[in-house]
Amino acid sequence: MKILVVGSVAYDTVETPAGKRESQLGGSASFFSVSASYFTEVGLIGVIGNDFDPDDRAMYERRGIDTSGLIEANGKTFRWSGEYMEDINTAVTLDTQLNVFGDFEPELSEAHANAPYLFLANIDPNLQLKVLDAMASRPKMVANDTMNLWIDIAKPALTDLINRVDTLLINEEEAKQLTGEDHLPDAAKAIIEMGPTSAVIKRGEYGATLFGGDFSFAAPAYPLERVIDPTGAGDSFAGGFMGYLASVDKVDQESLRTAAIVGSTMASFAVEDFGLDRIKNLTHSDIGKRFEAFVDLTRFNPLS
Amino acid sequence: MKILVVGSVAYDTVETPAGKRESQLGGSASFFSVSASYFTEVGLIGVIGNDFDPDDRAMYERRGIDTSGLIEANGKTFRWSGEYMEDINTAVTLDTQLNVFGDFEPELSEAHANAPYLFLANIDPNLQLKVLDAMASRPKMVANDTMNLWIDIAKPALTDLINRVDTLLINEEEAKQLTGEDHLPDAAKAIIEMGPTSAVIKRGEYGATLFGGDFSFAAPAYPLERVIDPTGAGDSFAGGFMGYLASVDKVDQESLRTAAIVGSTMASFAVEDFGLDRIKNLTHSDIGKRFEAFVDLTRFNPLS
Repeated sequence: MKILVVGSVAYDTVETPAGKRESQLGGSASFFSVSASYFTEVGLIGVIGNDFDPDDRAMYERRGIDTSGLIEANGKTFRWSGEYMEDINTAVTLDTQLNVFGDFEPELSEAHANAPYLFLANIDPNLQLKVLDAMASRPKMVANDTMNLWIDIAKPALTDLINRVDTLLINEEEAKQLTGEDHLPDAAKAIIEMGPTSAVIKRGEYGATLFGGDFSFAAPAYPLERVIDPTGAGDSFAGGFMGYLASVDKVDQESLRTAAIVGSTMASFAVEDFGLDRIKNLTHSDIGKRFEAFVDLTRFNPLS
Repeated sequence: MKILVVGSVAYDTVETPAGKRESQLGGSASFFSVSASYFTEVGLIGVIGNDFDPDDRAMYERRGIDTSGLIEANGKTFRWSGEYMEDINTAVTLDTQLNVFGDFEPELSEAHANAPYLFLANIDPNLQLKVLDAMASRPKMVANDTMNLWIDIAKPALTDLINRVDTLLINEEEAKQLTGEDHLPDAAKAIIEMGPTSAVIKRGEYGATLFGGDFSFAAPAYPLERVIDPTGAGDSFAGGFMGYLASVDKVDQESLRTAAIVGSTMASFAVEDFGLDRIKNLTHSDIGKRFEAFVDLTRFNPLS
């Protein structure tokens, strides 16, 4: 197992201008692991309820994802309901039912604990810390995501965690909230001063900017003709980003740059259909062609 | 004269989080012509009042700008006052005094009328049309900018004009307003259906996206540590964009891509100080280095 991810597995009810879907498979760990599965071996740590559809577990397994850490607990699977209506970039949460996720206690097998790449998706930073502490040794690379809720209610734990990761992936607004800086390069600098060697600032339809200590890299979003459902775009980005790094087993600047484009590639697929519908059925050829479309989107000649 | 620009020459009073400046030289034609002057010969058509500072005319001339079309009229120079406080990307207009600009009637000399590149900066589309009609023959390339005011009050003239230009440069919000499309690629497609072969959608701190009929190109904004005054960023972009095209005397896809990065380069300088203070004193070495910084900001390796 090259990457271990801990995060949510959820049933989402989503409404967008393109339509509505009831109880579709989602959650940060689902988008991440499916996205990363095109590049490397992924193990998923999460919790589901008795209502979890065996077809959904079968989908993970078809993608080669190790689900030995996906534990069934008594109760219902985490459910989220939201809509993207006025602004396709911003979800309005209508309802959140933690259900079995409320008592989630991640447990790692030996195989989990020895994964060299660890992604701590957006969950309570105390749980993220618990997983990091449960690793057999410090992984080669650790990245995490977070959100406004944890900045509001668990900032000390979050700060401890961020100090210990290599890369923080975070939305632009939340990067500003976390650091108290209004201006993006200042926010990125403040994050790097908190501990990580790099920060990926996710900017929705504007793409993502990767900041290292001494470089920055702008990855655009693909100008898609149709965005169907933005849910999971950030976690699909993270899956492509970490999946690529684990596949080349390097985390140097050059690899991080390419990884950000692979992340953007996977995010661009994720939003093309509801939930996981698009990214669970990709081919390596689809991914290669979209990556080349990013090359074409960004290439230019020197000054003559 | 390779490029003719028609637009405003103004005295701006501007307040930003970095401070306040009273009556600094500005206006779309000022930013455009100073920016383009690093690449080619520019002529400026505009109107000033009796209050115009001879030092400001001397500055244009030091930059090699042909000011024979900058006519002095009885009255005061156009004045604009605005602030960028809560959101550095959005100007709040506090006051506009058209003054001599209210009766502006562009008049072209033979040299003006034979310029092969024409930029119609953001003024009344009826005036933009008048200048286009006054050209000796159809220039090799015509581009224009516009704003919400003209979409609101002069849409028929604006639509006529857009039908006749090669490239429309427009802010994202205004592109959406103009076309009635909420989604950027749809708005760009609708603009191209109106007549131009390309559209440059300006996205402030997110850069600019160039749409051709069969390609798109994402130019990022440079992640500057400090933005002092965003006034004129769009016109400085346009000046670099058109200036580069005129200098290579080509408007093919490859040249448009490089031109968009040159535009982004000039915009990144413009915002680093108040008004024209930064872009009026650049060296070619400054420009070359910043262009290379854009190369570094966007480069990545192929999938391995």
